[in-house]
Amino acid sequence: MNRYILLSSLLVCALSCAPKATIVEQYSLKSPDSTLEMNFKLDSRGVALYSLSADGTPILNDSRLGFELRGTVKAEQLDYKDGTVSKSDVRPCYDFDRDFILTGVDTCSFDEVWNPVWGEEASIRNHYNELLVHLQQKGTSRLMDIRFRLFDDGLGLRYEFPAGGDLVYFVIKEELTEFALASDYTAWWIPGDFDTQEYEYEVCRLSEIEKNFHNNMRGNSSQTPFSTSGVQTSLQLKGDEGYYVNIHEAALLDYPCMHLLVDGKKHSLRAFLTPDAQGWKGYMQTPCTTPWRTVQVARSAEEQLASRLVLNLNEPCALEDVSWIHPVKYMGVWWEMIAGAGSWAYTDVPSVKIDNFDYSKATPNGRHSANNGNVRKYIDFAAEHGFDALLVEGWNTGWEDWANCSKDYVFDFVTPYPDFDIDALNDYAHSKGITLVMHHETSSSVRNYERHLEQAYSLMNRYGYDAVKSGYVGDILPRGEHHYGQWMVNHYMYAVTEAARHHIMVNAHEAVRPTGLCRTYPNLIGNESAMGTEYQAFGGIQPKHTTILPFTRLNGGPMDYTPGIFEQNLKEWCGNDSHVNTTIANQLGLYLTMYSPLQMAADTPEHYSKFMDAFQFIKDVAVDWQESRYLCAEPGDYIIVARKAKGSGQWFCGGVTDENAREFTLKMDFLPEGHQFKARIYADAEDAHYLTNPQAYVITEQTVSSTDSINVKMAPGGGFAISFEECR
Amino acid sequence: MNRYILLSSLLVCALSCAPKATIVEQYSLKSPDSTLEMNFKLDSRGVALYSLSADGTPILNDSRLGFELRGTVKAEQLDYKDGTVSKSDVRPCYDFDRDFILTGVDTCSFDEVWNPVWGEEASIRNHYNELLVHLQQKGTSRLMDIRFRLFDDGLGLRYEFPAGGDLVYFVIKEELTEFALASDYTAWWIPGDFDTQEYEYEVCRLSEIEKNFHNNMRGNSSQTPFSTSGVQTSLQLKGDEGYYVNIHEAALLDYPCMHLLVDGKKHSLRAFLTPDAQGWKGYMQTPCTTPWRTVQVARSAEEQLASRLVLNLNEPCALEDVSWIHPVKYMGVWWEMIAGAGSWAYTDVPSVKIDNFDYSKATPNGRHSANNGNVRKYIDFAAEHGFDALLVEGWNTGWEDWANCSKDYVFDFVTPYPDFDIDALNDYAHSKGITLVMHHETSSSVRNYERHLEQAYSLMNRYGYDAVKSGYVGDILPRGEHHYGQWMVNHYMYAVTEAARHHIMVNAHEAVRPTGLCRTYPNLIGNESAMGTEYQAFGGIQPKHTTILPFTRLNGGPMDYTPGIFEQNLKEWCGNDSHVNTTIANQLGLYLTMYSPLQMAADTPEHYSKFMDAFQFIKDVAVDWQESRYLCAEPGDYIIVARKAKGSGQWFCGGVTDENAREFTLKMDFLPEGHQFKARIYADAEDAHYLTNPQAYVITEQTVSSTDSINVKMAPGGGFAISFEECR
Repeated sequence: MNRYILLSSLLVCALSCAPKATIVEQYSLKSPDSTLEMNFKLDSRGVALYSLSADGTPILNDSRLGFELRGTVKAEQLDYKDGTVSKSDVRPCYDFDRDFILTGVDTCSFDEVWNPVWGEEASIRNHYNELLVHLQQKGTSRLMDIRFRLFDDGLGLRYEFPAGGDLVYFVIKEELTEFALASDYTAWWIPGDFDTQEYEYEVCRLSEIEKNFHNNMRGNSSQTPFSTSGVQTSLQLKGDEGYYVNIHEAALLDYPCMHLLVDGKKHSLRAFLTPDAQGWKGYMQTPCTTPWRTVQVARSAEEQLASRLVLNLNEPCALEDVSWIHPVKYMGVWWEMIAGAGSWAYTDVPSVKIDNFDYSKATPNGRHSANNGNVRKYIDFAAEHGFDALLVEGWNTGWEDWANCSKDYVFDFVTPYPDFDIDALNDYAHSKGITLVMHHETSSSVRNYERHLEQAYSLMNRYGYDAVKSGYVGDILPRGEHHYGQWMVNHYMYAVTEAARHHIMVNAHEAVRPTGLCRTYPNLIGNESAMGTEYQAFGGIQPKHTTILPFTRLNGGPMDYTPGIFEQNLKEWCGNDSHVNTTIANQLGLYLTMYSPLQMAADTPEHYSKFMDAFQFIKDVAVDWQESRYLCAEPGDYIIVARKAKGSGQWFCGGVTDENAREFTLKMDFLPEGHQFKARIYADAEDAHYLTNPQAYVITEQTVSSTDSINVKMAPGGGFAISFEECR
Repeated sequence: MNRYILLSSLLVCALSCAPKATIVEQYSLKSPDSTLEMNFKLDSRGVALYSLSADGTPILNDSRLGFELRGTVKAEQLDYKDGTVSKSDVRPCYDFDRDFILTGVDTCSFDEVWNPVWGEEASIRNHYNELLVHLQQKGTSRLMDIRFRLFDDGLGLRYEFPAGGDLVYFVIKEELTEFALASDYTAWWIPGDFDTQEYEYEVCRLSEIEKNFHNNMRGNSSQTPFSTSGVQTSLQLKGDEGYYVNIHEAALLDYPCMHLLVDGKKHSLRAFLTPDAQGWKGYMQTPCTTPWRTVQVARSAEEQLASRLVLNLNEPCALEDVSWIHPVKYMGVWWEMIAGAGSWAYTDVPSVKIDNFDYSKATPNGRHSANNGNVRKYIDFAAEHGFDALLVEGWNTGWEDWANCSKDYVFDFVTPYPDFDIDALNDYAHSKGITLVMHHETSSSVRNYERHLEQAYSLMNRYGYDAVKSGYVGDILPRGEHHYGQWMVNHYMYAVTEAARHHIMVNAHEAVRPTGLCRTYPNLIGNESAMGTEYQAFGGIQPKHTTILPFTRLNGGPMDYTPGIFEQNLKEWCGNDSHVNTTIANQLGLYLTMYSPLQMAADTPEHYSKFMDAFQFIKDVAVDWQESRYLCAEPGDYIIVARKAKGSGQWFCGGVTDENAREFTLKMDFLPEGHQFKARIYADAEDAHYLTNPQAYVITEQTVSSTDSINVKMAPGGGFAISFEECR
């Protein structure tokens, strides 16, 4: 203890007596095209700093790097005379963000083209210059390297802790990485929270975030905001000089998810990691690395959307055989429960113990949607219209009391309700070319899920399910852990790698936000991790939401946003007062703008049956792409993208707008030259409006070539979709 | 919130304004032999009380029953403006220990004889009178029943929460059960701690516990004392009127382990449950029950040791097939590592990641005990001397950095070190009639253990291991959970029930203390959960320790105490400064006094080879019993017991003493009448002493019949053992 106090005092003295710090070492790195420049500096206090500029314009000013670490000496046991116990593990901590000396520097360049198993394009270039600095804390053998990769579209940096020094096992109290923006950027942000990302976006300057913090607060079954200055990543920013800057992380593995604390006055951001139940933030064993911290820089919103920096910073595919991984277009026995017309539960008792409860003797509530008849109806419809798969939620016992009970043994993931004949329904589906999608709601009882995981995946193999939608609703068990802490980050990856062993694709809802891990584990075909379509039935979503998500949430990987709602007025059919705040044409546009290899047609067969001409687009649209071109975009306003299907080579185009009507003239120069195409345009009708007239659309056809343009008009909350068919 | 505050205020008023409470309802219950009487009362405040007397002498005065429960309304999120997060889940709580009304009373009697799969006797009588009171909290539909079972040897009571009332899911803030002893009893106690029971016992009056609390404090790799008034159960007490009273619990399932808080002035004890990471103490779903709270009452120490009340309060055997469960006498590649002569680790690197570390290229440290040659040596010796099994610790990869690193993926439980040929060694052992005992040290990384449990048990099945010693050294992962909390109680039982599916017997070290669950799950053949022989190599243990354990720790089930140390002077052979504070004769006596179906001969073949005549007793002694007779006992002083082997019918007798020499004349009236027996007596030599001359023993033979007596002398820290062979 004495040694620790002594050391602290000396440090304080050294810092306070020191004259203004001067730079003692400096290294710079340029992007392959030389437009971006990164500088690494070590000042006279031994503090490591980096800065970033684009075309000579500062993006990040000098920004601090480093950590506060937990000491190895356990503090005196807190006084326990009063019969109360301290819940935290109190130990002295020490600074690991100063007194560094530079022991070496390595540089290299890298250029490759790789082919994702699925994605927005068939091949991706990964091209960067790298600087690796080797640091040692003065007077110790504590080692830390910092690796910088500078791409044409931004910077990645991560900390690496080599073996062989004093750090073997260590615990992070806080990561101190700074992102000191050069000016007061405009931010598209959601509140920082350790347990949910299901918030609507607020747009304001960094300096205004704190005062606006509560504007979009909304309840959630698990919710832990931690500071009125806290925001989540991926954070989209735009500066007055016109640069689009995005801060996120890549390759989040066995480490807590990073939030950002905003210093509004200095327009600077600082890492704020998700804590464990005792408040600590990362358990490390050397050699190890942190995830990458990413700063994407684009000169336009379209360029930002086309950036693959986050994917590039992830490791190559770790699976040898990926032949079983495929894009999926699916329907689901789902929206009717979300909207309130049906129920996941089979019976209405207030509580069940699934091991003892005899469902065969229970009184059915008459609203259970996952029943044999209803599921067959969906199978018939999905098969008739060429879908790949059908999700069925509420198929397994335990839904009577699954949520918000902190219930440990909540589901067993293998026992169907009596009215769900798993054997017969799978046979029936397969006979019609449909695969059922498994559903594993865990209720965040994570130990229970892991205990049943092997049996649950084996059951899927036995019946021919090849994809699972998993869910983590409610507070985490083990209690005190958070959705975005290291414990859960480790779990989500465990579920994905175990699934890969079983050739199962995973679509995890309420899990930690994606950070490009789908490059390494392409069986992670989807995540929710943001406010999805379900919120249209929980009070509605502002129309601009889907014009922001591709800049933020989708930066790390695809989202199971579940588009395709054709009946906006929920009261019509299920007594729900919520209104779906989009037009039908907007819903069609989402199949292009919300990229995912997993796309749902989320509405019911009955609703689609009323609009079969519009439904045709959902049937036609591809879900895996050779090439993508972002034509027009501005976060919070609109996004328009054209994509070429992998395999068929067919082009599609789609767009969405916020609450404002917009008109664009789109050049068709993405089409191959010298060919004629029939463009089938699904557009908002002249009088369409997301609130008053959402179902008004017009479908027109037009013959176009690559030299033509198409004029598109989007209604308030509207959008459009176009399919191109070559004229032969 | 308002309603809660209002209710609280009214209660305070009602309590403070009320005249002295009067009894409004009262029921009494007598033990089958009418010597014990229990009274249940409900006073004018609606407070439930019970009291207990023996032969008209008060044992417990009126003692309060009930709970404090967590409210269902979540409190306002703590202020998070400062960027710090509350780690606890703060909610208003409410009293559930007053305002009860009695809605019904049931009584019944029960008498059965049951046969344990193994035990101190072949059949056990379970005979009690029962009172079940049905309570409802006034103005609510909150229901609670209290079930009392009064035996001739004490009282069991538990809370039962029926379904159908307002309580469905609820959370316990604290259980308030009181044990208001009628006078200032003398207690044999260890400090209350949420993570370890590895303490030496202190003996003093209840009123003196707080001032003596730190006397026997000793470091442990996981240690959480919570109050200087906290003690653990099973707590042995003795009153001035001569009654031996023991307070413990039975059938601890899916509930936190109970500690006791001592009110020295009132000589009263109160339940204090082990909290979870957030400080809450029990997650309940109705219908459910708590474990039994037990108050054993005996007129002599021998009677207390013979009480089977804790077993009787557990449910009958839950396993259909128990043919694979059997007692085990074993040796181990263990003591040489504990003492410091060998190592669990194969190499001396500071840290490994077991998935990546290539042991085949590592430099062996030359001290790895679980190597092929050494294990064969132990197999040979164990086989030659008729043992059943051999434990091998340190056989699997990961021991380089297993402890105190809060390491998640610490072991995989299936990969042997390169010098442990699992296939060949099992074949070799089996060819000699020896079964290897598996070792699963979890390092308390419990998620990691559960992830590997199925594979680990399957590997055991594949190689023919039928028993596992598991260990939980260090702080629990998930971090913030405790060894004795509900989370871990649930885990230990999961490991036992999963093991039963694989026909595997479990001996769990550092797990929660046993509460008689071996009746229901007889594959739980052992536990540590107290300071065992290993502490003789960690500084030594006071001689009286083993004269107390049978009253306390063994009250809930057998202990893998690992007796049989013949070389007391560890410095002799491994440079360890610790001294084993017993004589050899004491070590032999432990095979009788420390009942277990799993008995180890813990010392090395080399040390046994020097004392083969004394070793003969370890070879001969049985480990499963038809009948047991406690001949003389006093906690902290001495224990002498005679036991008749199941099957052979052979009698054995043994005793141990504390630091004082003692002499007893033992009547042989337990022997069958009319037969002659050759008694082979292993006794301390005249000049034996646990400190100065521990290896001095004499072996004599004597012919005796049931009408004879044998005189035994025990040296300080000594003991004796006798085997009886019928003369034919």
